[in-house]
Amino acid sequence: MQAPDDLARRVDSGLEDLVLHPELGDLAEPMRYALGGGGKRIRPVLCLATAEAAGGTVEDALPAALALELVHSFSLVHDDLPALDDDDERRGRPSAHVAYGEGVALLAGDALLGEALRLALAYERPEPARELAQAALGMIGGQYLDITRADVALEDLHRLKTGRLFAAAVGLGLWVADVPEADQAPWRAFGEELGVLFQAVDDVIDGDGYAAALGVDGARDVAANAAGRAHTRLEAIDADTSILAEIVDSLAVRTS
Amino acid sequence: MQAPDDLARRVDSGLEDLVLHPELGDLAEPMRYALGGGGKRIRPVLCLATAEAAGGTVEDALPAALALELVHSFSLVHDDLPALDDDDERRGRPSAHVAYGEGVALLAGDALLGEALRLALAYERPEPARELAQAALGMIGGQYLDITRADVALEDLHRLKTGRLFAAAVGLGLWVADVPEADQAPWRAFGEELGVLFQAVDDVIDGDGYAAALGVDGARDVAANAAGRAHTRLEAIDADTSILAEIVDSLAVRTS
Repeated sequence: MQAPDDLARRVDSGLEDLVLHPELGDLAEPMRYALGGGGKRIRPVLCLATAEAAGGTVEDALPAALALELVHSFSLVHDDLPALDDDDERRGRPSAHVAYGEGVALLAGDALLGEALRLALAYERPEPARELAQAALGMIGGQYLDITRADVALEDLHRLKTGRLFAAAVGLGLWVADVPEADQAPWRAFGEELGVLFQAVDDVIDGDGYAAALGVDGARDVAANAAGRAHTRLEAIDADTSILAEIVDSLAVRTS
Repeated sequence: MQAPDDLARRVDSGLEDLVLHPELGDLAEPMRYALGGGGKRIRPVLCLATAEAAGGTVEDALPAALALELVHSFSLVHDDLPALDDDDERRGRPSAHVAYGEGVALLAGDALLGEALRLALAYERPEPARELAQAALGMIGGQYLDITRADVALEDLHRLKTGRLFAAAVGLGLWVADVPEADQAPWRAFGEELGVLFQAVDDVIDGDGYAAALGVDGARDVAANAAGRAHTRLEAIDADTSILAEIVDSLAVRTS
């Protein structure tokens, strides 16, 4: 079983080697720009680690893992646009629309979403692509709630905006490892907790969300409780989940 | 076999009955707005008519047909945005971003693309969704060429921006009707010609593209030649293609 850092390197090399649809032409450049910049690759690493823990291989899971990162990247490119969050910087570099213009960034985001689903469709069974499409829709629905400032509980907003893609990272790993649907529930329960953990720590770092609603200490409690439940979920799974436990611990202590 | 007008009504009722992903919440409203407004439903009708001519049923082909219309609608919503074509009006009504704001229109377009792929994934076989994803990417690549005004032949631009979705309309109809890949070539050749016909007539109506490059008479010649070749392609197919022939004739004489 490969450690999280090794899996992240495999994701990076997979992204570098990724052959984008030829008809995208030079739009590939802003797409690759958006995929670069030193993302932490948490979602694809989670997918690969889940697949390996569940008896699959990293190589089989790689297209699904890359597809998750492309969906994440699509959401960042579009969310950064002036019409949404209007962020000029991303990972210490100019956002895609600052670097390439709004129109090109819009199309690059569209293409990242389409390319993600093309990747998830590399499998003969339709379930990975179905799960990814549903997760992307849930995430888009969460972003809609966020910008319309609908009267919605923070947990529900996070479950859509962040949680859906974390849950899908686990789910895609399970499909690729051929885990029958009837046996997936404990793994999926772990994925849900991991999404909460990630978001609560994110809110502590950024000073918003849970940190704004509950104070920094309150947000830290949410994170610690989610990490505890994530470990409990892993212990209930009859498999070597040590790498997934490492991921829980590293997410709990991250500061950037 | 159902006439084109009957098929268009089936598409309209299918769109009305379409259950969007529940996590989209109220984003469903701008999505439905974008899908309304009296579109001609040419792509989904072509898909349904192809499926029926190839031995399939309209009901089996309906999810694929609706998915094509959703991809088309996605492209219109995003193309109308100020960052791209900046069109305030669409089908005689305010564009989605004028009616709902740019941020919501951006997300509604994203959701239409994701929902389209979710629909195409309703089938057990992955080919319809694969073909739709590839066509969407080709179309996005064409829009990129268009806005960057790359030095590209008009035929190549049209083949991507318009042709890819027409070709996919035929292709999805064939997959749904279980036509083996080895037998698809003559049908697909017909779809390519229909895309050229549609675009040339469009350019005559709008006074751009072929009409700007070749004059209105030149564009009419392009359309007439494509219509002739489309009929020749149909005659080479051993099936009742009379409804598809009707579609050729109606596209050739349309004025809006």
